[in-house]
Amino acid sequence: MANNEIVYALDLLGTAAFAASGALAGVRRGMDIFGVIVLGVVTATGGGVMRDLLLNDTPPFCFKNELYLYLAVVASVIVFLTPRRFERMRKAMLILDALGLGTFLVIGTSKALSFHLGFMGSVIMGVMTGTFGGMMRDVLSNEIPLILKHEIYASACAVGGALFYALHQYGVPEGINLTASALLVITIRCVAIIKGWQLPRGKGMEQLHF
Amino acid sequence: MANNEIVYALDLLGTAAFAASGALAGVRRGMDIFGVIVLGVVTATGGGVMRDLLLNDTPPFCFKNELYLYLAVVASVIVFLTPRRFERMRKAMLILDALGLGTFLVIGTSKALSFHLGFMGSVIMGVMTGTFGGMMRDVLSNEIPLILKHEIYASACAVGGALFYALHQYGVPEGINLTASALLVITIRCVAIIKGWQLPRGKGMEQLHF
Amino acid sequence: MANNEIVYALDLLGTAAFAASGALAGVRRGMDIFGVIVLGVVTATGGGVMRDLLLNDTPPFCFKNELYLYLAVVASVIVFLTPRRFERMRKAMLILDALGLGTFLVIGTSKALSFHLGFMGSVIMGVMTGTFGGMMRDVLSNEIPLILKHEIYASACAVGGALFYALHQYGVPEGINLTASALLVITIRCVAIIKGWQLPRGKGMEQLHF
Repeated sequence: MANNEIVYALDLLGTAAFAASGALAGVRRGMDIFGVIVLGVVTATGGGVMRDLLLNDTPPFCFKNELYLYLAVVASVIVFLTPRRFERMRKAMLILDALGLGTFLVIGTSKALSFHLGFMGSVIMGVMTGTFGGMMRDVLSNEIPLILKHEIYASACAVGGALFYALHQYGVPEGINLTASALLVITIRCVAIIKGWQLPRGKGMEQLHF
Repeated sequence: MANNEIVYALDLLGTAAFAASGALAGVRRGMDIFGVIVLGVVTATGGGVMRDLLLNDTPPFCFKNELYLYLAVVASVIVFLTPRRFERMRKAMLILDALGLGTFLVIGTSKALSFHLGFMGSVIMGVMTGTFGGMMRDVLSNEIPLILKHEIYASACAVGGALFYALHQYGVPEGINLTASALLVITIRCVAIIKGWQLPRGKGMEQLHF
Repeated sequence: MANNEIVYALDLLGTAAFAASGALAGVRRGMDIFGVIVLGVVTATGGGVMRDLLLNDTPPFCFKNELYLYLAVVASVIVFLTPRRFERMRKAMLILDALGLGTFLVIGTSKALSFHLGFMGSVIMGVMTGTFGGMMRDVLSNEIPLILKHEIYASACAVGGALFYALHQYGVPEGINLTASALLVITIRCVAIIKGWQLPRGKGMEQLHF
């Protein structure tokens, strides 16, 4: 299988996994089937849509290739119908989510570089591709986005994006770069889950009123 | 009156009705007059602005024809000054809101088709034109968007959008299509209000932690 | 120092001040360092990014000149490490925030006029440049945006934007206009803080259900 085809397959897999996480959030909050689908589609495609808006590559990717939209809808409906099945598959879902995260990151960073963005811009585009959908899921669920509070998640993306940028500057072939950077994100994320790693947090000083 | 002029008139009516619903949400949460206006304008124009951003038709419609903005501001100020009047007009407001919903849907779907989007893209653009403003209203009011939780609302849009796409594919004249699809949305929405129809909901399994 | 350079210096100062306010909000909610940086960057750049998306000037300003991004990250990290220092500097921070508000307003309104927007569009672009980042900060912190509820803040921007538009129509030189309009916003904002001015508010009629 060519390199592009592997990335595409992982991209679709990640889309389904992200849609499932959005749909589950909707089910948990007692949304109706339409709300569950909306939350699934937003979680799965929100990051890439925001990236394409900022890069002015419109209409965004999922409107050019609607397979992403159909996949997100189907995954959301399956979750709506059998949410308990996904509870039992919790570990597998986290691994699929990590796969999606790493894939989305390298796709976003790579695309930003092809639009001649700089270091910060490319890393941000990668992180945004990986995390903006999940942030929208949490905002629409009326919660502080999880990735801002806990866990090595967006930060794993940032490290992977920085690696991608560096390897790109050194002329490492795209295929090797995609694989190495995605694997770094997936590895950090999975190890962080297993070990319970967290970043230092602010002290939540509620008395601070600015 | 030509067909375009009827759509335009309904579009303005819907803009005023949506602005009123946003402004009322602001009044209820004790916002000041400026916040009420912001919420009114965002509710009235947010859907069309998001659609135009995604289709890259910028600046978005209400910056090309500022009548939409003035109308939304005026409607918001009237609601701010006499909110109780709108309480007494609750039924009329729901009907006006349904009129706006149907009109916004057909405008969005029709525009997406003229930008050569596919089935899912066109339906999503229509649904987004009809519902994104209301979702922003709820997010800014710190609530889970109502349309994700209850009532036949966005789903009425989706059905109308699918009809519009199908009739368009079969070569039905635009004017008939606009009328038929908008009427379908308005009818579903109004019947759903009267009958209290709801979509099946997830079981809100709070114990599910994914 | 040329006029443009003064605006640029104030723009950077405002960026740092806005990033600090976003980062402080993150610290208060117990976010980790990555979340604090995200909130700082979004608060500092969100308004200008949204303006550039709506005007279709992409990639948005901070991706063309990454100094804005680096500055926001550095300011956020400093706040994360020493949040109490910023508590003691509360008054200075409010003044810096007002400086940023006035500067962001004139930059946004001026840019909108160069894109041939009308009165409402130009004022909205200015207000959005000044306030959208702070609204995102509050939404991501799961709060109703402060500027919709209390204080003369966005409304000071709107007055300044209207003045800028009027002086522009009368052919007042850009440099004088920038200074006068920004000073008006800063003055209104500072006097409002000192005097505790508020706009009239809705009566928060929770019994109103529309």
